[in-house]
Amino acid sequence: MVQKAFQDYYSEAFSHCYGCGRLNDHGLQIKSYWDGEESVAVYQPEPYHIAIPGFVYGGLIASLIDCHGTGTAAAATYKQQGRAMDTEPALRFVTASLKVDFLAPTPLGVPLEIRAGVAEIGPKKVVVDTQVSADGKVCAKGRVIAVKMPDTMMTQK
Amino acid sequence: MVQKAFQDYYSEAFSHCYGCGRLNDHGLQIKSYWDGEESVAVYQPEPYHIAIPGFVYGGLIASLIDCHGTGTAAAATYKQQGRAMDTEPALRFVTASLKVDFLAPTPLGVPLEIRAGVAEIGPKKVVVDTQVSADGKVCAKGRVIAVKMPDTMMTQK
Repeated sequence: MVQKAFQDYYSEAFSHCYGCGRLNDHGLQIKSYWDGEESVAVYQPEPYHIAIPGFVYGGLIASLIDCHGTGTAAAATYKQQGRAMDTEPALRFVTASLKVDFLAPTPLGVPLEIRAGVAEIGPKKVVVDTQVSADGKVCAKGRVIAVKMPDTMMTQK
Repeated sequence: MVQKAFQDYYSEAFSHCYGCGRLNDHGLQIKSYWDGEESVAVYQPEPYHIAIPGFVYGGLIASLIDCHGTGTAAAATYKQQGRAMDTEPALRFVTASLKVDFLAPTPLGVPLEIRAGVAEIGPKKVVVDTQVSADGKVCAKGRVIAVKMPDTMMTQK
């Protein structure tokens, strides 16, 4: 069975995100999947996602960690509740805090693997730890503290 | 006298950055200036820099904090050395660590003000604290730990 990406379960109103919305033609449209207990996304940076020649722009890496993190937080919460991701009520998460440590310059031109694990999961808060690798080498580590989207924002779904 | 933006002092090789390179047609092309002891940049998000309808994508905010932070680190170091930004040897900084706390949803459609202060300045490391505001309200706070670009990367200038 082919696994559907976390983001492809999002309702239309939540599919405009620049980082992961399938309806954002200008955006990154990242796709996250389970790989055992970890979640993984692969993203090929565009040539213009450059910092200095040969290296990937750090803001892109932060963006990948952010969206993969909130997507993983939602998917993990559905899983914990024993629910499929297309069941109601919908669960969406926003980032309360994002931390990225850049460990090595990230080469531009190869696909990046964004791999995450859930460090902590509570009823309203999920902590997701992420590694970004290029050519098998970890270039950045990130931590996303994701919180359940407030009802005031959820009314748009 | 009209102040020249920090980024407009960067040599051509360092002007391709997606966040702040004046030569990156796809990028954000942010411009940072001194405002007394603080540095400030103003950026108007595009309609596609969306998280959910009405709100700015967090990855964009992280990107603004990142580039404004490294630019401020360089400008502050030139200032500390009593040098103009177009003097040699050139000083460039890269981000070792980026932390963003999202305090409130950031409304999409208004200009964002990115305002930073130098929290710590050493020979190789500068810590820059940043606030991002919309309509006068602080929506995010960020800390960039910027380090002097390694010579191996500087050879490209």
